[in-house]
Amino acid sequence: MSQVRAAVLEAFEQPLQIRTYPDPGAPAPGEALVAIDIAGICGTDVHLWLGQLAIPLPNIMGHEAAGRIEKLGPGLDRDWRGEKLAPGDRVTWASSIACGECFYCRVKRQPTRCLTRKAYGISYCAADAPHLRGGYAEKILLRAGTAIFRIPDAVPSEALIGAGCALTTTIHASERAPLEWGDSVVVQGTGPVGLAAIAVARVAGAGVIVAIGGPKHRLELARDFGADVVVDIAEVTTAEARRDAVLAAVGPYGADQVIECVGYPAAVNEGIPLCRDGGQYVVLGQYADAGNISFNPHTITRKQLRVIGSWGFEPRHVDRAIRLLERDAGLREKFACGITHRFPLDQADAALENARSLAGGKTVILP
Amino acid sequence: MSQVRAAVLEAFEQPLQIRTYPDPGAPAPGEALVAIDIAGICGTDVHLWLGQLAIPLPNIMGHEAAGRIEKLGPGLDRDWRGEKLAPGDRVTWASSIACGECFYCRVKRQPTRCLTRKAYGISYCAADAPHLRGGYAEKILLRAGTAIFRIPDAVPSEALIGAGCALTTTIHASERAPLEWGDSVVVQGTGPVGLAAIAVARVAGAGVIVAIGGPKHRLELARDFGADVVVDIAEVTTAEARRDAVLAAVGPYGADQVIECVGYPAAVNEGIPLCRDGGQYVVLGQYADAGNISFNPHTITRKQLRVIGSWGFEPRHVDRAIRLLERDAGLREKFACGITHRFPLDQADAALENARSLAGGKTVILP
Amino acid sequence: MSQVRAAVLEAFEQPLQIRTYPDPGAPAPGEALVAIDIAGICGTDVHLWLGQLAIPLPNIMGHEAAGRIEKLGPGLDRDWRGEKLAPGDRVTWASSIACGECFYCRVKRQPTRCLTRKAYGISYCAADAPHLRGGYAEKILLRAGTAIFRIPDAVPSEALIGAGCALTTTIHASERAPLEWGDSVVVQGTGPVGLAAIAVARVAGAGVIVAIGGPKHRLELARDFGADVVVDIAEVTTAEARRDAVLAAVGPYGADQVIECVGYPAAVNEGIPLCRDGGQYVVLGQYADAGNISFNPHTITRKQLRVIGSWGFEPRHVDRAIRLLERDAGLREKFACGITHRFPLDQADAALENARSLAGGKTVILP
Amino acid sequence: MSQVRAAVLEAFEQPLQIRTYPDPGAPAPGEALVAIDIAGICGTDVHLWLGQLAIPLPNIMGHEAAGRIEKLGPGLDRDWRGEKLAPGDRVTWASSIACGECFYCRVKRQPTRCLTRKAYGISYCAADAPHLRGGYAEKILLRAGTAIFRIPDAVPSEALIGAGCALTTTIHASERAPLEWGDSVVVQGTGPVGLAAIAVARVAGAGVIVAIGGPKHRLELARDFGADVVVDIAEVTTAEARRDAVLAAVGPYGADQVIECVGYPAAVNEGIPLCRDGGQYVVLGQYADAGNISFNPHTITRKQLRVIGSWGFEPRHVDRAIRLLERDAGLREKFACGITHRFPLDQADAALENARSLAGGKTVILP
Repeated sequence: MSQVRAAVLEAFEQPLQIRTYPDPGAPAPGEALVAIDIAGICGTDVHLWLGQLAIPLPNIMGHEAAGRIEKLGPGLDRDWRGEKLAPGDRVTWASSIACGECFYCRVKRQPTRCLTRKAYGISYCAADAPHLRGGYAEKILLRAGTAIFRIPDAVPSEALIGAGCALTTTIHASERAPLEWGDSVVVQGTGPVGLAAIAVARVAGAGVIVAIGGPKHRLELARDFGADVVVDIAEVTTAEARRDAVLAAVGPYGADQVIECVGYPAAVNEGIPLCRDGGQYVVLGQYADAGNISFNPHTITRKQLRVIGSWGFEPRHVDRAIRLLERDAGLREKFACGITHRFPLDQADAALENARSLAGGKTVILP
Repeated sequence: MSQVRAAVLEAFEQPLQIRTYPDPGAPAPGEALVAIDIAGICGTDVHLWLGQLAIPLPNIMGHEAAGRIEKLGPGLDRDWRGEKLAPGDRVTWASSIACGECFYCRVKRQPTRCLTRKAYGISYCAADAPHLRGGYAEKILLRAGTAIFRIPDAVPSEALIGAGCALTTTIHASERAPLEWGDSVVVQGTGPVGLAAIAVARVAGAGVIVAIGGPKHRLELARDFGADVVVDIAEVTTAEARRDAVLAAVGPYGADQVIECVGYPAAVNEGIPLCRDGGQYVVLGQYADAGNISFNPHTITRKQLRVIGSWGFEPRHVDRAIRLLERDAGLREKFACGITHRFPLDQADAALENARSLAGGKTVILP
Repeated sequence: MSQVRAAVLEAFEQPLQIRTYPDPGAPAPGEALVAIDIAGICGTDVHLWLGQLAIPLPNIMGHEAAGRIEKLGPGLDRDWRGEKLAPGDRVTWASSIACGECFYCRVKRQPTRCLTRKAYGISYCAADAPHLRGGYAEKILLRAGTAIFRIPDAVPSEALIGAGCALTTTIHASERAPLEWGDSVVVQGTGPVGLAAIAVARVAGAGVIVAIGGPKHRLELARDFGADVVVDIAEVTTAEARRDAVLAAVGPYGADQVIECVGYPAAVNEGIPLCRDGGQYVVLGQYADAGNISFNPHTITRKQLRVIGSWGFEPRHVDRAIRLLERDAGLREKFACGITHRFPLDQADAALENARSLAGGKTVILP
Repeated sequence: MSQVRAAVLEAFEQPLQIRTYPDPGAPAPGEALVAIDIAGICGTDVHLWLGQLAIPLPNIMGHEAAGRIEKLGPGLDRDWRGEKLAPGDRVTWASSIACGECFYCRVKRQPTRCLTRKAYGISYCAADAPHLRGGYAEKILLRAGTAIFRIPDAVPSEALIGAGCALTTTIHASERAPLEWGDSVVVQGTGPVGLAAIAVARVAGAGVIVAIGGPKHRLELARDFGADVVVDIAEVTTAEARRDAVLAAVGPYGADQVIECVGYPAAVNEGIPLCRDGGQYVVLGQYADAGNISFNPHTITRKQLRVIGSWGFEPRHVDRAIRLLERDAGLREKFACGITHRFPLDQADAALENARSLAGGKTVILP
């Protein structure tokens, strides 16, 4: 029986190890065996590596990936959209499987909060057969019920993984906190989520978009993705000065929507005063528990704000992401160009180190 | 020229003084002179008295009141709804006047955040002519543009003032954070705002309603207004135990909507875990700035909450409040019965002391 | 092998025939065999009988039913809500199964328009094994994937079937055309759907509710369910006079929402002028294609209406219906009392004739 | 006293007459006297001329216009947005004044259905002083309360009038029938409203946009404004063939939103089948009463559509239109280039004839 190589996290903060697992061979009904072409390194992977979220070890990380169908299990011949699936097809998949049966899935139609949701590259222990449940590997075995998407020819896998889960997460947030076209938007943070938020706000018809972040090359990307004004936190060094810069761009009462894509809790206290009264403050970056802030709830009442959270994404949002990229050649190119570092699977550990350093754009593994 | 007596706040935390002002005589165009029958003492008045909000002194407080038209200025012959107005008519009025012209009034249709909004009983200095801009007085001179409402015969003034601005404030909040009928609701706090929130949630088709508060007689009122389950903070003394009690009533995932009507910032941290994921948390009680809490914004992302603020109310909400009372004899009686203490104008100071002690139900002044 | 008796529609407009089918015995995985206690006769059944909708023959009608679990197939041990299921449990079920995979199910989250939706009692040919797919029978074999609901002890089956699919259909419509509490509502028609619409509008916090219909005993039911004003079409015989009666009740500009529950196309032209400008007109009764009307679309522009259609219901709406009945003893009693005629299975044909005559309230079959 | 020349409609279907009126001189408080630079001829003006809407005669038409402030009445020194106004400023204004006091203005916040709304160029009799209430004149006297907008330097008057009331009307409709970004849109009609609907759909983030119309040069404009696919009614001559063309572009189930911008009632029956089930059908073009169609309301129920009307616009929508043009140089140029015919005031009648013939793009009068 042939073997499949994977980069495995065996201990937090320790180098990934290259391990081999038995090739699963013929998939069971509904399953798909996929040869990974490309796996993105998400900021969350760095948090996982550092042990900041509870995950089982050993773990094959990698929740953003694309590849080619190697084998399809019995009964699986259509993708999530109902399009024909065959070996050789280029595909991606929603990283999470929701149960479809719990209170959140059924009654509240909110599968991102499914009570038993599991995510590839995060929730599975690599010690348990069939082992191959993450993207940092030559192959992944997708469970029955996974939302698989055949990637349209027009969409290069690098565009899709360059966008990554930042795009799908942002699309979900745009559904929970819809813009009215022409609304002014401030995006706090110019990491992958911030850039995706700028791209989606632009697509959704935002008026003035202001990005607050850094360093310089990220701000250039922010402009490319649609920011009209960028505020460099290295140059505009106080919250007050940044607020002045924002108000100069969006008007004296603040922005209609402010989207927090920073991840540091303190960003919330800087961001809320950037909202106009009655505006929306979207807390999108607080994905990991990074601690408490000193917060004044009176502000929410007095400014009659809507503070909106959004968690993960559903298969529908992957569908929207792919359609968006299919339609928009400019975005495809920008997201693909956002990939600045490529590593083979053997150097997955170096890839992770590189991503951690935030040295450039997106880092990917090409198994 | 005759004189008008008023109870005047001249120094914070000091007794109100009975002063006299010249009767304004014939109102100017659009103005109305109204003889006050009844003025409610709102919790905010206690805060004003204690100097916790910035107001001009001397000040005739009283932003909840009803009376009879004494004289109408030229051009004023219809109330806000277009109904005929004449001397002798029993009326109430929206406490605030929005400018109708600023960014918030015009562009965002959100007059509660009008840039130059002024409220009777709060924003006017009694030293400035025409002095009579508050309800703790024999008469009030309403400015042109005030939203005046003729009170339907079916609605006693005591029912209206018993409901007070708590009802109109809650109605505004119900518009910003609409329930789907059948939604489970938790109301934190059984003061006037909490009771009104229960009443409005019941009217709006809430499923299970849980009230958390005290003391005992307030919880009985909470039941009267529609709470299915009450949690007495004197008996259930920890946040954990209260959460258990709530979940036992609304189901293990939390309530669809939680409405904070407490005013203490700490209530927010107790309340958010009472919400189901994807639910609404309405911050309604943080009307005064009562300081900061240690708060974890990760919760908003992970639970994908909507945290919603609402400030004050518009004339439309007074209209809805009056229509509600006109339609619902039970509510009229409950709100009227909520008035437990009545004082003449001369004893306005005692009335304020009584309201401060939270000894019973609503306290009113009958000038 | 034992036999199961069923009343079968073999030719349109011809008497139902009592036929026997082999008892299916042990259900396959996910299936459930249920002994029918009660099956409602819905107005749609009369249309089916008359051949006004395309259905396969022979056909065991009956899409509203409740019964007791006789046998559960492997893997089926929880109901739709996740509650334990066991033989003997009293249950009902959503009449339709959506595929969960098509464009409407997945992308648009609108399973009522599932491309391959099939309904018990409507879409199945009784000639095809396993035959038992309708409620006019001693037993029904529910397919894997059916949304089964254990009926709470507090809810008699007669209350549930008395409400029938009229209630679930109306609940779906209330979701698509939500009321703001206090909104005035006109319900055209006092058949089962009209009465359910009144009940739901009342629950959802409607202000004044006006019912237009007849005959007298239906109007009394309309009042029982919450109509404030009823207009008897036998007495108020012109559309103009009915409009006058409505405006007298809801105000001179028309109602905030008008719900058509009549089924005759002409009702639409009578109903739209009952809406205020900017109001909602809900087309709920045009379930069968009953032909065209002469219609002026200028009205929709000028009155800036929202005309809203709603089709069938999802399992979520059965869930809401059951919860509503569980919560509201008054509604349980009213819906149960709405059942005025009961027939044994052998007299299913007489039951259908009775329902067709609209002689009384709800007709049911007790197999 | 100097004289002001105007082109006056004195009898339907008869040539406009050039008449003179006394210059109003000093405006009363809140009024503004404006020298007209440019007045657009709207399709509605042709209907007015033909006597298809009830208007008083004689009448100075022209409800789309821009000019320079000549004199400001006392108290008027700010525009609708609060910006300083002074003689010489280039301005436009909302064509209608709503009373701000009636049921629709106040309670329903829907001033487009104001009970006493009057529109410049439509509702005023030129025989009544001060006569100058339309745009086909050298000057217009704007009433106190008119929503006047100072035109930003970046926005040429020709861009604004090239867009005309078609743009503001469409913006209002986009508010009543909001798109989700990525939604597919079909626009029926490529007249001014159709082109504006395409422009707004593009700005609002539409996915595929299909325009159905003609002739050729209008379809080229449709592409310029953002249509991805155009269907020429001269080439694709049956409704069935047009439906095929639409479905080929948007997918087999129909478009998420279809916007009727044709004006012929028959367009509604062609358009509804272009909607996917659960989609939105926006009836925007039925501005005049052009008669009845044979219509089947069952379709609305079965397809569970939302059919949405929208009437006119509010000052807020003029504000959004100006901001949009200020932000989008491409749109400014496209709308300005849409003006293909310019006439002096003396030739207003020829201008109207030209507009009636639909020979080209937009026709304007330059007084």
